[in-house]
Amino acid sequence: MKRITELKAPAYFIASAAVGGREEWQGPLGGSFDFIDPSDSFGQSTWEMAEAEMGRVALNVALRKCDLSHSDIDVIIAGDLQNQCVASAIALDSFGIPHIGVYGACSTCTESLMLASAMLSLGSYKRVATLTTSHNLAAERQFRAPTEYGAQRPPAAQWTATAGGAFILSTDDEIINENRRRGLPVSACITDFLVGRLIDGAIKDGANMGAAMAFAAADSILSYFEESDLTPRDFDLIVTGDLGAVGSRILREILKEKLPSAVSRHEDCGLLLYDMSSKDVHAGASGCGTSASVLSTHFLPMLERGEVGDILFLSTGALMSQSSLLQGNSIRGVAPAVHLKSLTANNKRSSDKISAPCCNNDEVRISDTEAYEKQPSGSNAEGKPGYTRPDSGQISENNGESEVRG
Amino acid sequence: MKRITELKAPAYFIASAAVGGREEWQGPLGGSFDFIDPSDSFGQSTWEMAEAEMGRVALNVALRKCDLSHSDIDVIIAGDLQNQCVASAIALDSFGIPHIGVYGACSTCTESLMLASAMLSLGSYKRVATLTTSHNLAAERQFRAPTEYGAQRPPAAQWTATAGGAFILSTDDEIINENRRRGLPVSACITDFLVGRLIDGAIKDGANMGAAMAFAAADSILSYFEESDLTPRDFDLIVTGDLGAVGSRILREILKEKLPSAVSRHEDCGLLLYDMSSKDVHAGASGCGTSASVLSTHFLPMLERGEVGDILFLSTGALMSQSSLLQGNSIRGVAPAVHLKSLTANNKRSSDKISAPCCNNDEVRISDTEAYEKQPSGSNAEGKPGYTRPDSGQISENNGESEVRG
Repeated sequence: MKRITELKAPAYFIASAAVGGREEWQGPLGGSFDFIDPSDSFGQSTWEMAEAEMGRVALNVALRKCDLSHSDIDVIIAGDLQNQCVASAIALDSFGIPHIGVYGACSTCTESLMLASAMLSLGSYKRVATLTTSHNLAAERQFRAPTEYGAQRPPAAQWTATAGGAFILSTDDEIINENRRRGLPVSACITDFLVGRLIDGAIKDGANMGAAMAFAAADSILSYFEESDLTPRDFDLIVTGDLGAVGSRILREILKEKLPSAVSRHEDCGLLLYDMSSKDVHAGASGCGTSASVLSTHFLPMLERGEVGDILFLSTGALMSQSSLLQGNSIRGVAPAVHLKSLTANNKRSSDKISAPCCNNDEVRISDTEAYEKQPSGSNAEGKPGYTRPDSGQISENNGESEVRG
Repeated sequence: MKRITELKAPAYFIASAAVGGREEWQGPLGGSFDFIDPSDSFGQSTWEMAEAEMGRVALNVALRKCDLSHSDIDVIIAGDLQNQCVASAIALDSFGIPHIGVYGACSTCTESLMLASAMLSLGSYKRVATLTTSHNLAAERQFRAPTEYGAQRPPAAQWTATAGGAFILSTDDEIINENRRRGLPVSACITDFLVGRLIDGAIKDGANMGAAMAFAAADSILSYFEESDLTPRDFDLIVTGDLGAVGSRILREILKEKLPSAVSRHEDCGLLLYDMSSKDVHAGASGCGTSASVLSTHFLPMLERGEVGDILFLSTGALMSQSSLLQGNSIRGVAPAVHLKSLTANNKRSSDKISAPCCNNDEVRISDTEAYEKQPSGSNAEGKPGYTRPDSGQISENNGESEVRG
């Protein structure tokens, strides 16, 4: 069984956009989001509809960035965390773009990018888009309990991101060259991918999804380097979606034993989205919007600036429903991987680790996350020591209005 | 925007399998199912796990039919109706096959076949499988109410099928020829497909999904023939997934006005799975297992026998969650289409309609379904006039044991 698929033509990112809520805006990447609504409501009366609106905004901003209209997109591949992926279905119907719905839990971003590159390889589409969203307040009441209930969160719990990412890809040389002529960035491409396997890590705790997904991430990373001619040294970074502190520690322990050169290259989007030294997010960010927004705000810009040449990017999904957990079933993990390549990096790779905004240590300190639990609710208010407020004077926090940024 | 994708190499069906429960066994296609469990439980203690087991059985039977093992499958594309598609995730983890999860509600079967043919076109996979399941009792309590509650069903309501279908596809000439040499049927192929658009038919009633999906089916059929060089006369059948009586009537009314030649070619899987003259299924079958099992038990054998040459096959999905309905949102419909071609038909097409086991009338009589409502619960017991019991002596109905059939 061959796992890695080499694309005959690389799939180029011709635009991306990230949209987020209040917590995401206050994180280290907050200043790089394209659109923020500090009220988290995106002008809607329910959190579920807020997520749909967030998706709509993300796609619109991505289209605007490369000066396209919805009719320029041949297919969109979309998914979210709501039951029956209803957020993306509601988000996208007015666009009239042919639609493929996917469900990969928090692996949705990478799963969609992988399928988008497969669809492009058919040769009949010019541009394929992907959209991935999650909303903290919609997800909490669906998977666990409404936040008003005030259920206590254990240290391994993660904070579902209110965030979304839209990506537009193409394999058409003419489109790529036209983008470049017009000064629009073509940051990176996907050269190959590996479809993830379902891995049962025997975790039955819905508040410990990082652990449930870590084994799937390890399986995909080990399988990739077992089959590929490349080694971890050929990559600047190996990025997982939202393992958080607990899952990252498990993954690194496995890699330390089986593929030591991968350990120092590992980053996790779930540890990058929030300032974990000041925010009450326990083991980090989760939700499929995490890897989608961190890819758009952090890793694609790094690839575009040529700071990194190659990234193995794996969003990680925990496949469970409220029913399956109540019935005592364990959570299945899955971690599809795409190989992202910079178009500007000098093909020189550093054996040194690339610096990320936080959590650069090889050893993730779970004890750090335990400390957050002791903070009273609301301790994540502004002005707290260590709190990094992004420079975003454009956003009026008080009146809840939202604004598109450059 | 180009909608139809012509495959460079057709994707051949090298095996398929259909699995069902008691009601499906008692329907006109019951004798063609590969595996039946009249207890609907598939040896499991919950309906949710029964659906997972049903999926596992379907894939195993399909593999056995073409003498393959799970390691011969490069990728599986799977989906079901449970929240977070947890049935297929639980069904498939023990196989270790790289997995892509999709959510298209009742459009899952066609969506998966479309993606499977796209994945095969990458050239690096030999065999790609798809799996689609739905379980009446798991779906009812998730989308509406547990059946023990005894909620009254309106005439437009459909009966979620306890059924699943697994398909194995390949584009590899060597595999196709080897299958033929060994006398294994290669029934049909997919030559092209059209990705469906999300259509809001402004239906907010979760018990009238047929109406919600009819507009999406009409959009896909009209778009297909608008773009294609082919006309409805080039197809023996235009088959929808599970519009049922209400949705089929709406679709035919639209087609009568806009594409009259399509009307007489229309069949709906939701009207074929149960004997609607005797069964209390109201407007027909629904659930993504409907089109998957009817494709495997009815249409693929017809293509294999050469009784039909070309089928435009559209599973139809109603995208909604319990939350979205309670919040007053309308149901979005989607209807991806695949063009199925017989490998044995003489390329001669009849302008006469191909006879299907039931519901051959151009005009679907909704009044017929209203009559079922008047029947007391349990009136669908054996021996009722008009009840067609398939010849299936192999199945011991009393002890609930299941058995694989030829």
